[in-house]
Amino acid sequence: MMWDYEQPVDIRFGNGRVSEIGELARERGLRNGMLITSGHFVRDGFAQRLIDDSDGALTGMFSDFSPNPDVSEVDACAAVMRESGTGFVVAMGGGSAMDLAKAAASICLTEDSIADYHGTGKAMPQKHLPLIAVPTTAGTGSEVTCVSVLTNRALGKKAPIVSDGFFPNLAIVDPELTYSVPPYVTACTGMDVLSQAIEGYWSKGHQPICDACAVHAAKLVFRWLPVAVAEPRNAEARERMCEASVIAGLAFTLPKTTSSHACSFPLTNIHGIPHGEACGLTLDWFAHINADAQHGRVQEFARTLGFADVDAMADAIHDLKVTIGMRTGLKDLALSESQIDDLVRISRHPNLYNNPVDITDEMLRDMYEHLAATD
Amino acid sequence: MMWDYEQPVDIRFGNGRVSEIGELARERGLRNGMLITSGHFVRDGFAQRLIDDSDGALTGMFSDFSPNPDVSEVDACAAVMRESGTGFVVAMGGGSAMDLAKAAASICLTEDSIADYHGTGKAMPQKHLPLIAVPTTAGTGSEVTCVSVLTNRALGKKAPIVSDGFFPNLAIVDPELTYSVPPYVTACTGMDVLSQAIEGYWSKGHQPICDACAVHAAKLVFRWLPVAVAEPRNAEARERMCEASVIAGLAFTLPKTTSSHACSFPLTNIHGIPHGEACGLTLDWFAHINADAQHGRVQEFARTLGFADVDAMADAIHDLKVTIGMRTGLKDLALSESQIDDLVRISRHPNLYNNPVDITDEMLRDMYEHLAATD
Ligand SMILES: NC(=O)c1ccc[n+]([C@@H]2O[C@H](COP(=O)([O-])OP(=O)(O)OC[C@H]3O[C@@H](n4cnc5c(N)ncnc54)[C@H](O)[C@@H]3O)[C@@H](O)[C@H]2O)c1
Ligand SMILES: NC(=O)c1ccc[n+]([C@@H]2O[C@H](COP(=O)([O-])OP(=O)(O)OC[C@H]3O[C@@H](n4cnc5c(N)ncnc54)[C@H](O)[C@@H]3O)[C@@H](O)[C@H]2O)c1
Ligand SMILES: [Zn+2]
Ligand SMILES: [Zn+2]
Repeated sequence: MMWDYEQPVDIRFGNGRVSEIGELARERGLRNGMLITSGHFVRDGFAQRLIDDSDGALTGMFSDFSPNPDVSEVDACAAVMRESGTGFVVAMGGGSAMDLAKAAASICLTEDSIADYHGTGKAMPQKHLPLIAVPTTAGTGSEVTCVSVLTNRALGKKAPIVSDGFFPNLAIVDPELTYSVPPYVTACTGMDVLSQAIEGYWSKGHQPICDACAVHAAKLVFRWLPVAVAEPRNAEARERMCEASVIAGLAFTLPKTTSSHACSFPLTNIHGIPHGEACGLTLDWFAHINADAQHGRVQEFARTLGFADVDAMADAIHDLKVTIGMRTGLKDLALSESQIDDLVRISRHPNLYNNPVDITDEMLRDMYEHLAATD
Repeated sequence: MMWDYEQPVDIRFGNGRVSEIGELARERGLRNGMLITSGHFVRDGFAQRLIDDSDGALTGMFSDFSPNPDVSEVDACAAVMRESGTGFVVAMGGGSAMDLAKAAASICLTEDSIADYHGTGKAMPQKHLPLIAVPTTAGTGSEVTCVSVLTNRALGKKAPIVSDGFFPNLAIVDPELTYSVPPYVTACTGMDVLSQAIEGYWSKGHQPICDACAVHAAKLVFRWLPVAVAEPRNAEARERMCEASVIAGLAFTLPKTTSSHACSFPLTNIHGIPHGEACGLTLDWFAHINADAQHGRVQEFARTLGFADVDAMADAIHDLKVTIGMRTGLKDLALSESQIDDLVRISRHPNLYNNPVDITDEMLRDMYEHLAATD
C-alpha cells in the first residue's frame, strides 16, 4: 500500500485558549488581522471583545455571510481585505465562517473571482494570507482541512474546492466556544463529525494514520453526542465532541469523503437540510451497502467500535439520529418523481466515486425512494 | 484538558519509494546532498546506487559511526559537512543513522560540539540543513520525531536531545528496505515500536491524536511482529511493521516516553543490550504497575487492543518476547549488588518522571532484583 501524509496545521486545544490569539499573532509577527465571524458572535459582543483584547493584532471584522457561504460573499470579503491591506485572517465560527475565510484569504491576493475556481477544475493559487481557524461548532473539522465548501446560488451548485493553500496555519480549538451552540445545530454538526470519520475510513483514499483518527473520533461521537445535545453546558461532552471534530478533520482531509457527503450537497442546496443532518441522513444506508467492502476493513472498524458488525453499527447510527432529533426520512417533503430524479442526478458528485462500492443510479434512486416514503 | 499538536513531517510510504529521493530533492531545490547511512548499505552497494540514481542531488556519503552513535561521531560528521558545503542530508538507516544525521545537520551550521547540548539543558539552535529521513528498521520512528538519542561514551551517558529543529522535513518509509534486517534486530526494533506506542499512551504528556496513533501501532505489533521475525521476506508483515513504526513515532514524539525508556539507557550503555530489547525488558513490569493509573485509561487501552485487562496485555508482552527470542531476565549477566545499584541510580532519568505512577528507588530495585534472578 502506498500513501502520502501531511498535516501542516499546528493545533492548540483547550478551554479558554481563544484568548491566546493576540499573543500567537505577535509571536508570528502577524499584523492588521481581519476577524471573520458569524452574526452570533457579533451580536453577543464577543467578537468585539476579542478585537479589543488582541493588543492591536486584529483591526477589522467581516460577518456579512450566510451559512453555506456563497461565492459572491467570498468575493465581497476578499474585496474588503484588499482595500484594508489585511495582513492575516482569524476565522472564528462554524464551517461556514472558516470556509469563507480560507477562500477569501487566498483570492484576495489575486484580482480573480472565487467562482472561477469553484467546480471548474482550475487549480487555486497557492499563495494566501496566514490563517488562524477557531471552530465554534464541533462539526466540520475545517480548522485542519485543505477543503473549502462553497455554494454558487446563481448556478444552483454546492461543491468543495481542495487546495494545499487552504490548510490553516494554526487551529485554536476552544470547547467553551461551543457551549452556545443550540441543540439542533449540535446534533447536525455532530452527525457531520460521524460522517466524516466513517467516510474518511472507508474512502478509496483511506490511509493508516487517518484510519486511526477515524476510529478515535467515531467512538467519541457515539458516546458523547447525545450528552452534548441534551446538556449544552456539559463541559466534558463539549470537550470530547470538539476532540472528535478536530480528529475527524484529520481523518478525512486526505482520504476525502464519499457517498453521504456527495448526497448531502443537493439535500442542502435544494431542500435546505443543514449539512450534517444531510450527511447523516444517508450514512446508515451506505454503511449497509459498504459493509463487506475492502476485504473486511469496514467490518473491522465496526468491531473496533464495539459493535457486532457493520449492520449493528448502522442500526446504532439510526438510533442515534432518533435520539438527537435528526430526520430519518424525507416524507414531510412530499418529493415528486422529478425531485427524486434531481437528487439522483446531482448526487453524482466526484465524492461519490470515493465510495468503496460503486454506486449506480438505481442504488441512489432506491435509497431516495425509501427515504421519500419514510418519516 | 489542554494539548498542543504539531506534526510538520511529510510522509511518503510504500515499497520502492526510496527511488523518489532524487526527484523529491529536485522539487524542493535541494543540492549537494550528503547520504548518511550505515555499513550494511555501503557493503551491499545500495548506498552507491542511490547516489548514482539521484541525478546529481546526492554528492557525498558518511558512514563512519556505530549503533547508539557517540557525540564524537556527530562532530566528525558535522566537520565533513562543513568542509564539503553540504546543502541537505539524507539519513538512510536505523535510529542510529537518523539520530546522528539530525544532530549533525543542526550542529554543522555552528562551530559548536554537540556535546555542549547533550544532557546539559542547553537548547539546540533551531537552524538546520533540510533532512530527508529514510528508516531501514521498523523501530525507532525517528523519521517523524523531534528527538535525537546520542551517547557520550567518555562520560558513560546516553540521553535524548529534543529540539523542534530535529523534525525531518520528509520521511520516506519504504518497507522493502527492511527485508534485510536480521531476525534478532527485527525483534529488538519491533519491541521498541511497542514500547514507544504504549509509553506514549500512558505518558503524563498523553494527548488524543497520539492516543489514537498508539492504539493503532500497538495492535499491529502484537499481530505482525512474530511474523516479521519468523519470515523476514513476508511483505505484508514488513509493511505492517513499518506502518506501526512510523505511527508509533507520531504517538510518542509529543507525549515523550516514560519508565521503560528511562531504564533502557543504562541497560544499553552499561550492559550493551540493544535499545528495543532493553525497552521491552521492563515493559510488562511497568504495565502491571501502571494498570490502574489515569482513571482507567490504561485499562481502556488494553481492552481496545482486545485484551481482558492490562495484566492480560502484560502477559501477552511477556509471551511475545518469548516467541521472538527476546530476553525476559538478566540472570546471564550475574549482576552484583553494586551493578544493581548503578542500574537503579542511572534509571532516574527525566523520562522516568513522565510515568503515570511515581516510581521510587525501591520499585526500581525490586524490578531489577527480579530481573537479575530471572532467565
Ligand atoms: N471545509 C471542510 O472541511 C468542511 C467539512 C464539512 C462541512 N463543511 C461545510 O461547512 C458548512 C457547515 O458548517 P457548520 O456545520 O459548522 O455550520 P455553520 O458554520 O453554517 O453554522 C451553523 C449555524 O450555527 C451558528 N453558530 C456557529 N457557532 C455557534 C456558536 N458557538 N453558538 C451559537 N451559534 C453558532 C452559525 O452562525 C450558523 O447560523 C457547510 O457549508 C458545509 O458544507 C466544510
Ligand atoms: N530518535 C528517536 O526518536 C529514537 C527513538 C527510539 C530509539 N532511538 C535510538 O535509535 C537507536 C536504535 O536504532 P535502531 O533500533 O533502528 O538500531 P540501529 O540503527 O542501531 O541499527 C541496528 C543494526 O542494524 C543494522 N541495520 C539497520 N538497518 C538494516 C537493514 N535494513 N538491513 C540490515 N541491517 C540493518 C545497523 O547497521 C545496525 O548494525 C538507539 O540509539 C536508540 O536509542 C531513537
Ligand atoms: Zn461534512
Ligand atoms: Zn525507543
